Amino acid sequence: MESQKPIGIFDSGIGGLTVAKEIMNLMPWENIVYLGDTARVPYGSKSKETITRFAKEGVSFLMKQDVKMIVIACNTVSATCLEKLQDMLPVPVVGVIEPGARAAVKATKNRKVGVIGTERTVKSGAYERAIRAINENIAIFSRACPLFVPLVEEGWLENEVAYHTAKIYLAPLQKEGIDTLVLGCTHYPLLKPTLKKVMGDKVTLVDSALETAREVAAILFEKGLERGQGLLPHYKFFVSDDPERFIKVGEAFLQRPINPINVVDPEHW
Amino acid sequence: MESQKPIGIFDSGIGGLTVAKEIMNLMPWENIVYLGDTARVPYGSKSKETITRFAKEGVSFLMKQDVKMIVIACNTVSATCLEKLQDMLPVPVVGVIEPGARAAVKATKNRKVGVIGTERTVKSGAYERAIRAINENIAIFSRACPLFVPLVEEGWLENEVAYHTAKIYLAPLQKEGIDTLVLGCTHYPLLKPTLKKVMGDKVTLVDSALETAREVAAILFEKGLERGQGLLPHYKFFVSDDPERFIKVGEAFLQRPINPINVVDPEHW
Repeated sequence: MESQKPIGIFDSGIGGLTVAKEIMNLMPWENIVYLGDTARVPYGSKSKETITRFAKEGVSFLMKQDVKMIVIACNTVSATCLEKLQDMLPVPVVGVIEPGARAAVKATKNRKVGVIGTERTVKSGAYERAIRAINENIAIFSRACPLFVPLVEEGWLENEVAYHTAKIYLAPLQKEGIDTLVLGCTHYPLLKPTLKKVMGDKVTLVDSALETAREVAAILFEKGLERGQGLLPHYKFFVSDDPERFIKVGEAFLQRPINPINVVDPEHW
Repeated sequence: MESQKPIGIFDSGIGGLTVAKEIMNLMPWENIVYLGDTARVPYGSKSKETITRFAKEGVSFLMKQDVKMIVIACNTVSATCLEKLQDMLPVPVVGVIEPGARAAVKATKNRKVGVIGTERTVKSGAYERAIRAINENIAIFSRACPLFVPLVEEGWLENEVAYHTAKIYLAPLQKEGIDTLVLGCTHYPLLKPTLKKVMGDKVTLVDSALETAREVAAILFEKGLERGQGLLPHYKFFVSDDPERFIKVGEAFLQRPINPINVVDPEHW
């Protein structure tokens, strides 16, 4: 049966597990195959061509796992080549930008929205386009924060370094008076306590993981692809390198065990 | 003539330019071909197998450029698979670990040496082995500093974030009373002012780039491979991704223009 097939989740590494977690919470009966390209992470400072090539290789691997839909749980890939992947694949492909943009438009009251992400995501202008497509009267202020991903991977979520880094990156957005901040990278939700401390209580932090999980649920329902509720799920994790590190850091993201895990070669998958 | 051939320099990205710079200063008549695998940087948190595969691909590309020797200007690669590359290639292959180790042994008076580097370099124990092979009575204290590379790439060399990061990483080494600190990653020399501020004047910072350049000169001389002094050099730079970024960050490392630069595909070179 079609609906028994797993949902495929693709990320450049570990960050996409924040999206996997929300999907697991919202639809605990769905099977999931997760692929993290840990051999070539991070994508955020790489060129458009390279990211597109890596992403095509990733989704091809997931298609071989016979998935019923694919979630691009990576802002950089979603911002760079989502449409290309949608054109290329016979199953629904969902990114994280549009759900995040919708949530930001709902949240803002003063129509000043900040967007933070990797260099590539910010350079792409994908959030600006997605937000303006919903409401063109919103002012958008973006800032690339290349140190946030390594900070999260180091586990420095609430120390002095995280705080000073956030202060430097967020100062120009604060100056603009934004009331909503889109966390445009799947690693950033782990920095929420520090980001809140810097931005204060009056700024809403938008985390696209939950919004993306809702979109996945809507598409499965609309297309009649849901698996039966109450069934036990099967989860499978694939990485292209260093499963020990993925398990160690990833279990903090997912807040449950990562098992089984398999290593695959990115250049020959 | 054999000696007209260029010296090949391989690095995972930009850091190896600190070694290139010292070679250019010491032997301004030598031709150089530099290859930075910027599509797959950083190597420091990847597995031994993956690093070895990437390095083999890199040196194969340099061999096609008809180089007379190869410098592995990357601590992670030198620590992981230098011997394999030496066995595989018909030209001399020099790494950065042994020159750094020699300089540290010369510098220390209290026989307590600290080593900082990427996760992979520290895990490999390569500096411990190289230092102990020269003097087994030296106590060695190592610490992985995964945030230093992204800090350098962000250009945050002397701000509050760099200072607090260095304080956290170096505290355990200070506690041990080291008098010498090996900068076991080619990015780290750019952080010297901050590292000095944290460690104080009594600790010697060992930067293996200069020592490595001296070893290159010695080998060329010993094998009769030097190019004629007084000739003008030709420099060629190859990267696997994002030449604009390489030029922007790299010119700060090299302190001269990077030109010409070419992009090559790491999976098909």
